[in-house]
Amino acid sequence: MPDEFDFLKLVRARAEKSARRRTGLVRSIGDDAAITRSRDGFDTVVTADLLVEDVDFRRSSAPPSLLGHKALAVSLSDIAACAARPRWALLSIGVPSDVWRSNFLKEFYEGFHSLAGEFGVALVGGDLSRTPERIVIDSIVIGEVARGRAVLRTGALPGDRIFVTGTLGGSAAGLRLIERGRVSKTSRRVALEVKRARGALVERHFRVRPRVAWGRLLGERRLASALIDTSDGLSSDLAHLCRESGVGACVEAERIPVEPLIEQAHLHKADSLALALHGGEDFELLFTVHARDIKRLPRFVGRVPITEIGQVTQDRGRITLIKNGRARPLKPAGYTHF
Amino acid sequence: MPDEFDFLKLVRARAEKSARRRTGLVRSIGDDAAITRSRDGFDTVVTADLLVEDVDFRRSSAPPSLLGHKALAVSLSDIAACAARPRWALLSIGVPSDVWRSNFLKEFYEGFHSLAGEFGVALVGGDLSRTPERIVIDSIVIGEVARGRAVLRTGALPGDRIFVTGTLGGSAAGLRLIERGRVSKTSRRVALEVKRARGALVERHFRVRPRVAWGRLLGERRLASALIDTSDGLSSDLAHLCRESGVGACVEAERIPVEPLIEQAHLHKADSLALALHGGEDFELLFTVHARDIKRLPRFVGRVPITEIGQVTQDRGRITLIKNGRARPLKPAGYTHF
Repeated sequence: MPDEFDFLKLVRARAEKSARRRTGLVRSIGDDAAITRSRDGFDTVVTADLLVEDVDFRRSSAPPSLLGHKALAVSLSDIAACAARPRWALLSIGVPSDVWRSNFLKEFYEGFHSLAGEFGVALVGGDLSRTPERIVIDSIVIGEVARGRAVLRTGALPGDRIFVTGTLGGSAAGLRLIERGRVSKTSRRVALEVKRARGALVERHFRVRPRVAWGRLLGERRLASALIDTSDGLSSDLAHLCRESGVGACVEAERIPVEPLIEQAHLHKADSLALALHGGEDFELLFTVHARDIKRLPRFVGRVPITEIGQVTQDRGRITLIKNGRARPLKPAGYTHF
Repeated sequence: MPDEFDFLKLVRARAEKSARRRTGLVRSIGDDAAITRSRDGFDTVVTADLLVEDVDFRRSSAPPSLLGHKALAVSLSDIAACAARPRWALLSIGVPSDVWRSNFLKEFYEGFHSLAGEFGVALVGGDLSRTPERIVIDSIVIGEVARGRAVLRTGALPGDRIFVTGTLGGSAAGLRLIERGRVSKTSRRVALEVKRARGALVERHFRVRPRVAWGRLLGERRLASALIDTSDGLSSDLAHLCRESGVGACVEAERIPVEPLIEQAHLHKADSLALALHGGEDFELLFTVHARDIKRLPRFVGRVPITEIGQVTQDRGRITLIKNGRARPLKPAGYTHF
């Protein structure tokens, strides 16, 4: 059984190795707090995301390294949703004794560090505690953004166009597959391409790709008037954005970029449009753009496309979905915690 | 039963009210992340502390408002231990449904905000989640310190004198009283002054007073060569400081400022020196000072005194306790998490 300090030493060595490769970290794990240095003329952006076993994930279906990836990814998505650049991370983890004695933390940190390295984020601190039974993870990410360039949820104006990155519904479809016992149970009866699509959806649920490059571009070029990530689901997150901006919205069902894997995976009872509208955890960026700025929008950043799905209206608080030529209210039906 | 968003609205209104009174907060709860503005020429200090029900506290003996106080206080102490000024806080809280329906969160935030107001700290974000059974709290505090003025654990040199603020052992004595059923069970058989002392020790355990003013003074006047807070216990935290600085230490038992309430509380089976040496959670500051700087040290900051308890030696990793004229090794015997 590793000793707490031995383990922290390992984490620290790893963290300092990663920190040596970049500047801005004055002092990391081992002191009471991490000391970071932002460049003058930058604002600091901070986010925290709590993941609780048996509420946000199940140990039986979440491989530790993917959980480490996801814990960081959801926070990176929050930073992206402010148009900021992620720089430092803190991890507070509580684990029961049996998990402490297992390889869980080692694999968890591998997943975490792999994604952190990709985005140039240094793990600088956090806390490690025992819990009586369940794993709990609080992922904190600190980013920076040029002073005044953060994009908030509050700036959408009537007439702005609404865009979303990537595709929607894939993560919720993946979760459904995980909950019904994953791919294995039906593996003999489905074709290879269906199996592949199902595997890809499960992967999508865990291996969240935070849209950091899109977020930074939207902020740096002053392209977005309001910005949020789709963590609770399009219907809920669009409602948040509209409420914060004091506007309404009109969305066209035919334009919504429904994840094509959902059709390919033959999820017979799943309504793929409903998954795209209300399924959470896609962590795409949802943003509004003044009409005059649309011509400056790139179609892709990296390989990630954007899709125009509707426009902002002055109908404060009212969100309308147009489908087959009929308009109906789109009620938030995404994830709520209680 | 309150709705999650209603509750967040309340927290947010409260947080924004407190934020209006100070500068530096660009945007708080409600966006994906909090955006804060540090002054140019300052470093950012961040700390996270995880508190888990039935490990770090018991719901039956920890009043919610005191728990809110303590969750913030332990993080403020970490900031103080870097000689920084606390400015912003994030709170990630997970609670089971019955706690969500109770007054717990309301009272918890009252305790939190009361202390936050006292130290000019604004709650700017965090996360709120459901848990299956137990309460979990991650308290994150962000501070700032003039560039290069943070005091680390690494700067102690042989010949430096070792100081500690306030008194030691009181929190551990309070915890012992709480664990044996508090004051009530023996209330008829003890004198009034003994009861008062016991009540004060229980209070001491919860109502941690972070030594922020001392920490800032030590940093601003470049008085301390190394600095840590006594969260795990003097023997453990002095060992941390010595290990980080690559030095040893010699401590005189007679000089240790043992909390006088312990004697007054007639804790017959408690060895008050042992509580002061190894009992955790006093959250006093333990620091070293170059001999030439001692004359510049004030004796008090506010009403909090300091006491010289020993000196730093070149005997790397070896800590000696001198008691009744005899020297013996002082082994770390404070709190470990696993």
